[in-house]
Amino acid sequence: MESRFERGLRKLGEIDGEQGDRIVAGLADIAPDFARYLIEFPFGDIYARPGLDLRTREIATVAALTAMGTALPQLKVHIQGALNVGCSRVEITEAIMQMAVFAGFPAALNGLAAAKAVFAGRASD
Amino acid sequence: MESRFERGLRKLGEIDGEQGDRIVAGLADIAPDFARYLIEFPFGDIYARPGLDLRTREIATVAALTAMGTALPQLKVHIQGALNVGCSRVEITEAIMQMAVFAGFPAALNGLAAAKAVFAGRASD
Amino acid sequence: MESRFERGLRKLGEIDGEQGDRIVAGLADIAPDFARYLIEFPFGDIYARPGLDLRTREIATVAALTAMGTALPQLKVHIQGALNVGCSRVEITEAIMQMAVFAGFPAALNGLAAAKAVFAGRASD
Amino acid sequence: MESRFERGLRKLGEIDGEQGDRIVAGLADIAPDFARYLIEFPFGDIYARPGLDLRTREIATVAALTAMGTALPQLKVHIQGALNVGCSRVEITEAIMQMAVFAGFPAALNGLAAAKAVFAGRASD
Amino acid sequence: MESRFERGLRKLGEIDGEQGDRIVAGLADIAPDFARYLIEFPFGDIYARPGLDLRTREIATVAALTAMGTALPQLKVHIQGALNVGCSRVEITEAIMQMAVFAGFPAALNGLAAAKAVFAGRASD
Amino acid sequence: MESRFERGLRKLGEIDGEQGDRIVAGLADIAPDFARYLIEFPFGDIYARPGLDLRTREIATVAALTAMGTALPQLKVHIQGALNVGCSRVEITEAIMQMAVFAGFPAALNGLAAAKAVFAGRASD
Repeated sequence: MESRFERGLRKLGEIDGEQGDRIVAGLADIAPDFARYLIEFPFGDIYARPGLDLRTREIATVAALTAMGTALPQLKVHIQGALNVGCSRVEITEAIMQMAVFAGFPAALNGLAAAKAVFAGRASD
Repeated sequence: MESRFERGLRKLGEIDGEQGDRIVAGLADIAPDFARYLIEFPFGDIYARPGLDLRTREIATVAALTAMGTALPQLKVHIQGALNVGCSRVEITEAIMQMAVFAGFPAALNGLAAAKAVFAGRASD
Repeated sequence: MESRFERGLRKLGEIDGEQGDRIVAGLADIAPDFARYLIEFPFGDIYARPGLDLRTREIATVAALTAMGTALPQLKVHIQGALNVGCSRVEITEAIMQMAVFAGFPAALNGLAAAKAVFAGRASD
Repeated sequence: MESRFERGLRKLGEIDGEQGDRIVAGLADIAPDFARYLIEFPFGDIYARPGLDLRTREIATVAALTAMGTALPQLKVHIQGALNVGCSRVEITEAIMQMAVFAGFPAALNGLAAAKAVFAGRASD
Repeated sequence: MESRFERGLRKLGEIDGEQGDRIVAGLADIAPDFARYLIEFPFGDIYARPGLDLRTREIATVAALTAMGTALPQLKVHIQGALNVGCSRVEITEAIMQMAVFAGFPAALNGLAAAKAVFAGRASD
Repeated sequence: MESRFERGLRKLGEIDGEQGDRIVAGLADIAPDFARYLIEFPFGDIYARPGLDLRTREIATVAALTAMGTALPQLKVHIQGALNVGCSRVEITEAIMQMAVFAGFPAALNGLAAAKAVFAGRASD
């Protein structure tokens, strides 16, 4: 049986690809246990759950991080993640724009700037 | 051709049903123009756009309002809205639980309490 | 020469009237020093400064508390305060509505609900 | 060897006492897995770690929840928790007052109101 | 009769000058409709309303964005905007300092740093 | 008798060392009075209070600023401050990791990145 850690690592790879590796590596010398928690709880527990498909999970995360406005690096990671799991650029852009309604225009503008930067760094999806 | 207001009213009805009417009515004596803006921009402009289906839009909104933690009345309205447009209780609950990862356990706990209250007030969906 | 405390008390009275007394009284048994700080710094130092008139200061505060969405009791106090220093109901309502742009519609809706409750409790201003 | 769940349950009991049971019970019919995560990750993983004593952990949590201003029910739970693990009323009050500096006076005032309510419901600590 | 778009464009020019053009241009390849919404709703609908003068509107926005702390680029735009519509540097600085009371010293310090950067880039107002 | 300003300056030096001087110097040409308030209220009034030791105060501040996510420059200053008053790197890291529970993983990850940057710039504590 797959452990939480193994399942989380698999899920993290599926969503974040090599970005996930970089985040985990960045924690190695300051908080290695936190890298393990990050793999186990968000990815091994939550993202691995049935009941909501991965594409919708990533749209929900992109929307929430856009609305919060306090986690720009993570927003970029999850815009990549959304693309990796099959969301289209249009779907991501729509979810970010929608946040103008709930969190204001600055939140949406900063989210769109993040998306623009991510999209520019990838071959077309 | 349908005006922004007409389109928004139709969309608001589709999502929020009679809750939408109550919100609009509550604004009548303090800011009637704001009721019009609420119908026109969020519902007539944003929610009426193609590119992201209504169910995913509502999941994104439920996630974002849960994460923000500053808009409990609107979170309840959009949990209703998510059910109205065909999201299942499980999908809504999953999106809220996922916010523990991005906005912390208190945000998710308060979101689940809101969902529980909304679910209790409806015949099973 | 007037002390910071005396100046703050005078300013608090001018803005918040008897509400200020209630807040100070509510702190008496848990954090009496905090009541003193509240009088001295916000009111004795900041609100007593020249350079921005009191009406604009109160509009700025109402806007900020509406946008933050985490301080509903204080928003109500400062809607009262804005009226006490001569802002009109229309000016207050406009400042709150404007926050839909910067902090989203839920923030503005909750601010308008606070204003409605405050306005209802006063003879017309 | 104690499982994460068992360790979390023990830690939750130590900090939150019967409040913890109530929170877990409240999740039973809507998100029972989330009750398990709540026991396992915050309490079984994080709070069980060495490196920072439990009293300081609870002061840090009370400070953070006061500053965030979006989690009043959880703030009350952790004010109880801080008392349960041996923090004094004065220490808790000081940590909350200090948040006026970092998150503003409304955050501190709402935190003090929460503390006052919690203190009033307990025999003197 | 002027359309919402025309009125918004005029208002945006009045407040943001060429900055507004840059924001709109930056959206052209990712979300051109959002540029239109930005012109129509915030500027064509809200900022064009009577009931609160433009200088007070900009002070309210500067205060709110300072307090929120999640929209530094937009804060700078609106500090420029406040100067463009006739607010003095002193008025802007006072509104930002006041936010120390409501959102904490870090919010005010970051707002003052933004103002300092904007002021330095302009001939004296 | 020591004035609030003198006491604050002493406390600021004890906690922030030469960083405090830089912050005060940075305010000299835009808001010199605000530099005075910063010394007097946070440091002369709050940090100088008995009832909570300085190490716990700094842990509380690091936790709160991590959770808020809107004050990265100030978070770095107070990670330095925590080290200056005798907190260990482990204690600081634990307090930041704990915020994953209350404010989400992105807040904790950004806090850990801040700590990593601060730790790297100092000889080992």
